[in-house]
Amino acid sequence: MVVTVRHSLETSGQGDAHDLTSVLAAALADSSLANGIATVSVVGSTAGITTLEFESGVVRDLNETCERLAPRMGEYLHHLRWGDDNGSSHVRAALLGPSVTIPFTDRSLTLGTWQQVTLVECDTRPRNREVVIQLIGD
Amino acid sequence: MVVTVRHSLETSGQGDAHDLTSVLAAALADSSLANGIATVSVVGSTAGITTLEFESGVVRDLNETCERLAPRMGEYLHHLRWGDDNGSSHVRAALLGPSVTIPFTDRSLTLGTWQQVTLVECDTRPRNREVVIQLIGD
Amino acid sequence: MVVTVRHSLETSGQGDAHDLTSVLAAALADSSLANGIATVSVVGSTAGITTLEFESGVVRDLNETCERLAPRMGEYLHHLRWGDDNGSSHVRAALLGPSVTIPFTDRSLTLGTWQQVTLVECDTRPRNREVVIQLIGD
Repeated sequence: MVVTVRHSLETSGQGDAHDLTSVLAAALADSSLANGIATVSVVGSTAGITTLEFESGVVRDLNETCERLAPRMGEYLHHLRWGDDNGSSHVRAALLGPSVTIPFTDRSLTLGTWQQVTLVECDTRPRNREVVIQLIGD
Repeated sequence: MVVTVRHSLETSGQGDAHDLTSVLAAALADSSLANGIATVSVVGSTAGITTLEFESGVVRDLNETCERLAPRMGEYLHHLRWGDDNGSSHVRAALLGPSVTIPFTDRSLTLGTWQQVTLVECDTRPRNREVVIQLIGD
Repeated sequence: MVVTVRHSLETSGQGDAHDLTSVLAAALADSSLANGIATVSVVGSTAGITTLEFESGVVRDLNETCERLAPRMGEYLHHLRWGDDNGSSHVRAALLGPSVTIPFTDRSLTLGTWQQVTLVECDTRPRNREVVIQLIGD
């Protein structure tokens, strides 16, 4: 009924993106589940999970929009609290959201051909990220 | 335990919005489920799903904000890759997200009166969209 | 299999944020569930749910970005419809999204230490908010 798969990865810092689709598809294939939903979630408040066409142009376009939205070198009250420099990271991650939920039917994810589940690193430094995949169904 | 409903619709291009609430409510009514969650997901990387008060003013206000955030006529690296013109679509869809998950209790969705589950077309041309509704519960 | 917890709270208006993590953790502790997912959803179309490091600096940084994105005193077509003044609220809430889904394993939420499930009030006036927590698992 419930299958958990944990996946760790290293990021290179703000704007780095990782395609999680093959990890997710393998988790589904290794389970005995045929129909249900997959929640893909990142632990931590300075990275986001969404879907996008995973090619370097789209990734950079998304990051340029994030830079306009919450500039890395902007002024953030969060910096005053801890001496951090990642106020932009917190804002971007809160807007992207920490998880995405995708249905699966007949043992296949209902993603488009050009639609990949993607972790977007928002933090200003390299991070070790833990992703939790939770499959629920029957 | 798991009930899948697929729904197809035609959009007229960027900014077109479709209220999916009645489709979702019908899927729930036709199921034998009383309590659980409903995931509403769009296949493809250039449309988003969210909730909003479905009236033409809100839809246009959201689209104007998306236009400021990721202008349709802006420069996108994605355009260089395929000769596409829909870089703005990818960025908007990644920020909106491809799915939304809403609880239901006693056979009713826990939506507000002025809160509708909505597909927002972000692509620059009309598209045939496939929506997957996955109900899980008991 | 499915456990529902409802939680009401009062907000003070646009930008007010409420940490829901302890409510969510208590709901999980009171259930008999060990592994699954928790969907935290707000009823209504002018508030959002996301995760963030819940400290006043991050909350204000996020609100300043939302203000640039959809200024409270901007012009909105929604205002023309009902005489409302909360066009900015609808746009912000649609972008934040109405719910977040977080896995739990071995009776613990897979959140980071500095990652809290947070309701962000987007409406321009104080509101009584109803949050629905739906736990699904085994």
